[in-house]
Amino acid sequence: MCPGNENARRRMRPAVVLLSGGLDSATTLALARAGGFDVFALSVNYGQRHGAELLAASRVAGVLGAREHRVMRVDLAGIGGSALTDPALAVPETPSTGIPITYVPARNTMMLALALGWAEVIGARDIFIGVNAVDFSGYPDCRPEFIAAFEDLARLATKAGVEGERFEIHAPLLKMSKAEIVRTGLGLGVDYSMTVSCYQASEDGRACGRCDSCRLRAAGFAAAGVADPTRYM
Amino acid sequence: MCPGNENARRRMRPAVVLLSGGLDSATTLALARAGGFDVFALSVNYGQRHGAELLAASRVAGVLGAREHRVMRVDLAGIGGSALTDPALAVPETPSTGIPITYVPARNTMMLALALGWAEVIGARDIFIGVNAVDFSGYPDCRPEFIAAFEDLARLATKAGVEGERFEIHAPLLKMSKAEIVRTGLGLGVDYSMTVSCYQASEDGRACGRCDSCRLRAAGFAAAGVADPTRYM
Repeated sequence: MCPGNENARRRMRPAVVLLSGGLDSATTLALARAGGFDVFALSVNYGQRHGAELLAASRVAGVLGAREHRVMRVDLAGIGGSALTDPALAVPETPSTGIPITYVPARNTMMLALALGWAEVIGARDIFIGVNAVDFSGYPDCRPEFIAAFEDLARLATKAGVEGERFEIHAPLLKMSKAEIVRTGLGLGVDYSMTVSCYQASEDGRACGRCDSCRLRAAGFAAAGVADPTRYM
Repeated sequence: MCPGNENARRRMRPAVVLLSGGLDSATTLALARAGGFDVFALSVNYGQRHGAELLAASRVAGVLGAREHRVMRVDLAGIGGSALTDPALAVPETPSTGIPITYVPARNTMMLALALGWAEVIGARDIFIGVNAVDFSGYPDCRPEFIAAFEDLARLATKAGVEGERFEIHAPLLKMSKAEIVRTGLGLGVDYSMTVSCYQASEDGRACGRCDSCRLRAAGFAAAGVADPTRYM
């Protein structure tokens, strides 16, 4: 990187961006960069079924200009209870009612806690998470009231908070439809062919086209009126 | 275990108890058992300096009658920022003012998030944590307002919460002095020689006698008027 870029970065505010490697978190990272933040991307390997997501996260972080990308490992598979972490539970391929079996208990609480810890260490007061409460799977920890409660908790949980500073949890996709998310990302130059949203992608990142996450994603491209760049199996 | 015990356990409410292997969490586990809970003990290996704590946790869980003991690994050492997880930072051996360097950013938030996830999977609505806001190191995430905020968050973060159930975060030591904690534990038959509180214990569990945690612990035995069973280096 040339010295001019380094100087520009020093004037930017740091932010931790949770990055799964899917469509939503890639768009969130692009929005954080567009908002002038110096991005520290954090991926959490919590025992997901496949590593293609984490590879996608690494590519997205590099291409979209994150300063740093870390992968932290948390062994959620040890507690089971979700089709995303327990190989004994099948990922559903038809729409379900209620909160689906792909819900990972307390996942966003844990990921935001890790982001908060890293933010405190690097002096960031801004955390971005790509949750969405419109075209979403009905997970409780994707709702605005959850995000607001975590912001309150962050103030009480940290040394920085005790010293009077506030953490802001940015959830810029919260009220967007999937089509709006796609259009926003395309406007910022996100190449969605790099991203992997599928719950059961192959190791080389090809999507099943049948799970909840694939269906929501494909519907988003269709509603946005753009070609779906997803590589399917 | 004899069948009679198994039947009795089936009638008991399950609870997740965070167990570090130190004096406070051992007392908390004993209190949970005395309160009639079926205990699922959770230790979090977050890159602490030594493994003696986790060995102590395993002994304590067994002796005090936890039904199960799990150790989950989270790589907090990767983010640094604390003398407990970063080998480049020394553990202080004289009292400090303010929040000390042994503070691990967002540690209790992360540990409670993991406890919450496991609780949801096993159907427990009760979580125990041995935080204390009297004879303590001044960590922000050991205060009553933090515990209350996490309880609010738990309701919003989970499927069970959405379905109208409440999680209770029990912090029975919150307002006890160290001497009261020691007396309570001794009354419940806790053998404190099994526990390791030292921030820089040797691999065989001997304590330095000089760090903040050792000083608070020794003062607690002295104030309670009982012999200190700690094995020092």
